Amino acid sequence: MSIAGPLHSKAIELARHVLRMTTEAGSGHPSSALSLLHVVVALMYKHMRWAPDDPWNLAADRLVLSEGHAVPAIYAAYADLGGVVGNDPSSWRKLAVEELDTLREAASVLDGHPSPAEGFPFFDAATGSLGMGLSVAAGLGLGARLRKSDRRIYVLIGDGESREGQIWEAADFIADHRLNNVTAIFNCNGQGQADYVSPQQSPEILGAKLTAFGWEAVQVDGHDPDMLLAALARAVKSARPVALVATTEKGWGVSGLKAKSNHGKPIARTDLPVALESLDGVAARVTGGAAPLKDRPAQPAGSIELPHDAPIRMMPIEQGMEYAGLSAAWNKKMMATRRAYGAALLALGRADERIVALDGDVSNSTFSEMFAHHFPQRFFECKIAEQNMISTAVGLAASGYIPFANSFAKFLARAYDQVELASITRSNIKLVGSHAGVSLAADGPSQMSLPDVAYFRGYSTVEAEHGPACVSFHPADAVAAYKMARLMAEHRGMCYMRTHRPDVPLVYGPDQEFSIGGAHRLAEGDAVAIVSSGFMLHVCREVVELLRGQGIRCTLLDAYSFPMNPAPLLAAGRACGGRYLCVEDNYTGGLGSAVAEIVAQRQGGRVETMTCRRVPKSARTALELLRIVGLSPEEICGRVREMVRE
Amino acid sequence: MSIAGPLHSKAIELARHVLRMTTEAGSGHPSSALSLLHVVVALMYKHMRWAPDDPWNLAADRLVLSEGHAVPAIYAAYADLGGVVGNDPSSWRKLAVEELDTLREAASVLDGHPSPAEGFPFFDAATGSLGMGLSVAAGLGLGARLRKSDRRIYVLIGDGESREGQIWEAADFIADHRLNNVTAIFNCNGQGQADYVSPQQSPEILGAKLTAFGWEAVQVDGHDPDMLLAALARAVKSARPVALVATTEKGWGVSGLKAKSNHGKPIARTDLPVALESLDGVAARVTGGAAPLKDRPAQPAGSIELPHDAPIRMMPIEQGMEYAGLSAAWNKKMMATRRAYGAALLALGRADERIVALDGDVSNSTFSEMFAHHFPQRFFECKIAEQNMISTAVGLAASGYIPFANSFAKFLARAYDQVELASITRSNIKLVGSHAGVSLAADGPSQMSLPDVAYFRGYSTVEAEHGPACVSFHPADAVAAYKMARLMAEHRGMCYMRTHRPDVPLVYGPDQEFSIGGAHRLAEGDAVAIVSSGFMLHVCREVVELLRGQGIRCTLLDAYSFPMNPAPLLAAGRACGGRYLCVEDNYTGGLGSAVAEIVAQRQGGRVETMTCRRVPKSARTALELLRIVGLSPEEICGRVREMVRE
Repeated sequence: MSIAGPLHSKAIELARHVLRMTTEAGSGHPSSALSLLHVVVALMYKHMRWAPDDPWNLAADRLVLSEGHAVPAIYAAYADLGGVVGNDPSSWRKLAVEELDTLREAASVLDGHPSPAEGFPFFDAATGSLGMGLSVAAGLGLGARLRKSDRRIYVLIGDGESREGQIWEAADFIADHRLNNVTAIFNCNGQGQADYVSPQQSPEILGAKLTAFGWEAVQVDGHDPDMLLAALARAVKSARPVALVATTEKGWGVSGLKAKSNHGKPIARTDLPVALESLDGVAARVTGGAAPLKDRPAQPAGSIELPHDAPIRMMPIEQGMEYAGLSAAWNKKMMATRRAYGAALLALGRADERIVALDGDVSNSTFSEMFAHHFPQRFFECKIAEQNMISTAVGLAASGYIPFANSFAKFLARAYDQVELASITRSNIKLVGSHAGVSLAADGPSQMSLPDVAYFRGYSTVEAEHGPACVSFHPADAVAAYKMARLMAEHRGMCYMRTHRPDVPLVYGPDQEFSIGGAHRLAEGDAVAIVSSGFMLHVCREVVELLRGQGIRCTLLDAYSFPMNPAPLLAAGRACGGRYLCVEDNYTGGLGSAVAEIVAQRQGGRVETMTCRRVPKSARTALELLRIVGLSPEEICGRVREMVRE
Repeated sequence: MSIAGPLHSKAIELARHVLRMTTEAGSGHPSSALSLLHVVVALMYKHMRWAPDDPWNLAADRLVLSEGHAVPAIYAAYADLGGVVGNDPSSWRKLAVEELDTLREAASVLDGHPSPAEGFPFFDAATGSLGMGLSVAAGLGLGARLRKSDRRIYVLIGDGESREGQIWEAADFIADHRLNNVTAIFNCNGQGQADYVSPQQSPEILGAKLTAFGWEAVQVDGHDPDMLLAALARAVKSARPVALVATTEKGWGVSGLKAKSNHGKPIARTDLPVALESLDGVAARVTGGAAPLKDRPAQPAGSIELPHDAPIRMMPIEQGMEYAGLSAAWNKKMMATRRAYGAALLALGRADERIVALDGDVSNSTFSEMFAHHFPQRFFECKIAEQNMISTAVGLAASGYIPFANSFAKFLARAYDQVELASITRSNIKLVGSHAGVSLAADGPSQMSLPDVAYFRGYSTVEAEHGPACVSFHPADAVAAYKMARLMAEHRGMCYMRTHRPDVPLVYGPDQEFSIGGAHRLAEGDAVAIVSSGFMLHVCREVVELLRGQGIRCTLLDAYSFPMNPAPLLAAGRACGGRYLCVEDNYTGGLGSAVAEIVAQRQGGRVETMTCRRVPKSARTALELLRIVGLSPEEICGRVREMVRE
């Protein structure tokens, strides 16, 4: 029996909210929201199994709004259904319909684009930068499968948005992993922001693309409730992932919003009555004086809660190295940080079932392959598609897992926009980038990572939910990499670790501890406090020895983490007359900037910084390349001597 | 008549070089290179119209190696053909075959991955981070069409690489723009780095995808010379863009390199004789004692040279505003920097035919739409696909154009990996990001740009070809935006401009000049030197007035560009007892770091910095959000008072 009437009726009721709230806000995207109304109503009122008073339950079906600017449609439905909002149990409350008019206000939980961290727990991830939602849905789908939950994930994607390559990375990934618990709905309203969408994003070509990618594509009228519900029912039964390609109308129901010049424009306050009247006319035509909607499907039984923060009982490093089959290398006291991290990831996986790992076809370089071999169910091969990898990790984190996403540090840069959205989500993802900096040498600059230290340090001074928006770790040896991996797993929030390709000697004993913001002093002197980390710490150890032979005694500080705690730094500097030399194998904005900021804030010394001063090229050895970019031991020694002389 | 014999023979000759040079280098990807041999020989020896002694000629056909790690195959062919290398006329020379053994050496032009800037002018763009080549080819294709040249562009793409979403962004773009002068060859050797490629990247599914994207997909045996040449000939005649989906064998001809564990592994020196012998056996089977290859097609007549650096005669700002239809706003002395930039782009387009523009469906927000309306032939709508936009701009720059790529600053972050590759290319692209920083307010953090200042500043201290790897501009008003757009156009090298959404009053008169690294002093005082730029400069002007009312006189410096010239900064600080307060609407790593570095290097003062200290959310006004993130005028005043008191 058709329920088109009641669904239309509800759609029109929500349309009124959408118009009013965006007019009140003075900004927003009502025309996009209106194009999605019937899809939203079909999902949230009729198809999805969820409970508005329990949006945290991992058993419930889930909705990802990839085209985040259409969010007023969701807010309206959620308020109408009595959905719960708030950041913590003390502030939980039903979202009142009147509260919709606070859209985009400073104190409102209704942000301009979906943002779970500001008190709207119906969403799992911040969206709004386009093209990420299908990947988040993939992560949620993986999480559901891991938990053996039959929850289903729905994701709403704009037609213009489907131009973003990440959508097709996600389409491949979902096909590879046969995630038929994910259903995508493409909202084909035919209009982008500046113009109509390209024919390449028409329903026909989108359908053909999806079919070629191995999906079942179902063409539907996005304003036909019966057709939508039938297609959604079909998706539940399909062995393949299903995409609904929904032809819709931008500004549905409101003639003043249908032209292509109306993207992102609310109706002026004075025009609102006419627009609402226009909806009355539509209502008279389509609802047939329908009865109210009833019978929402129940949330699946068996509430699943997010796992508690439990301490992680990771095996000690010697045992971890043995477990990873690395005892020989360990005993030689020579190991690349990336390899030690691989052993740590394996040990973490053994210690805690929440640990999962992702890689982008380089697991034999990042050494996540050890984890993959031991825990194939918790390892997700993303192939060469880093954007999808990061957003998928966000979906896994929202499912209560602690995902470690691995690639060359250089290739993680492919996903910096996704990283930023993860920071808005306050997602608990862990990023590990290998082969960073100039020590990679022979492969050349296209494989190195040089702006990453500055990029991630930027987040370290920004408050997020449980601390900085991102904590960075720069291990110099195997012990540091192993211990820092554990710090990452235990810290709640985004973390970044930067590892290097070359084998390096051990600096630390197996019992050395590390902490967020900490630093270790490795040599004592009074000439200059040399501050470094990672691979360059080894070059600086050599420098300290060379200088000692020349009668110059330097302090050496391993400042391995951002945000940087000023105390150990300033103590090191005091011993050296306030002379600091920072040495880093990356572009400006990292260690030297952090030290200069701390010192200059206190008017306390002189800071010189040596960074990579030239775009690198290939060289057969790290030492040769260090010479080319101005970071050889000789040049560092020379700089220290200058500082001492001045 | 079949020329399979001679082509096989040449392929085997090159294979020997590939094996030897990678063994000599001790690193590299011989197995990938071997899978491409026949494609390379068919193109470089038989199909492409080019001259090895004239690689700079814009009339010649062009090859883009997207899977950059396979480059030894190209190097071997280029040396065999007597291709010219060198960075400038004084160093031009034929690449000797013996020089192949310098692969990856510090002094070699043969970098580990394609890198035109290190002396290998056969390439237009650095590649090696995967998935970018098809977009570069699209830019070269657009450039050829603009010049009415019939040059053709060939691009070699790995099968695993085609997982990168950018490939599909480029496929859409090339279909939209009907660039049938671009031919893609997908190298389906079936192996990635860590494992076999996914079935999603099999020749069959790749072919189906390409067909769905509107391409003509031709399945070929990538080691069958006749079939390759016939397909290439067919591509020349096709009205649609053509892709050859070439099934190949990784490690072709060398049994020891065929297993999937051999990605990126050269043959050990001791095993080289056996491998070369294995090639002898293949040669005996396939070459048929062939005659040498002859008859390369001639380079098209009519040499086209890169246009000279000519000064750009841009109309004065008043005239420019009138030309853009902005006289009314100009006369009110209130205008957003993004709008003034739009007028500047239009005036630049009128002044110089080398100016081209790209946008990602936001031209009515970035105001590149004015350029689009006046110069539709030189405007390229990229739709919502920023990665493709940036790499396409690199292709246009390599064709002698000066491309301005426009989007929200936030969405340019989508392409930071592409930006980094552009820096390795030393590409002359201009990036303009609008709606940056917290002043966007209502739309929320998913649309702002917060780590961008630190990211781009990192490049400003790195030497590239004609100056810093990237110059950044942060205009505070319409005059600054207009003049800085011209500085960007005239500067040879990558530039980034960050504009803001809100209308702001004019700070400068129409004759004010600006320079790379410059700064302007806007208020004189002795209390604290406030250093700011962009939107926050207006907040700081208010702060200066507020403090003046309290008897505190501050110096205000507009430090609008990176790299920062220390002189005006230090002069401003000296007047204020060495007290600096930096104010910026972004995350750490920008202005405050630059100032701290300069001051701390000279042991000359105290630097406080106020950045965005919390992940932003929506607010209805910029002022409300400034309060939330700790940047309100009151807080800035408070900090100044503290500094003065201390």
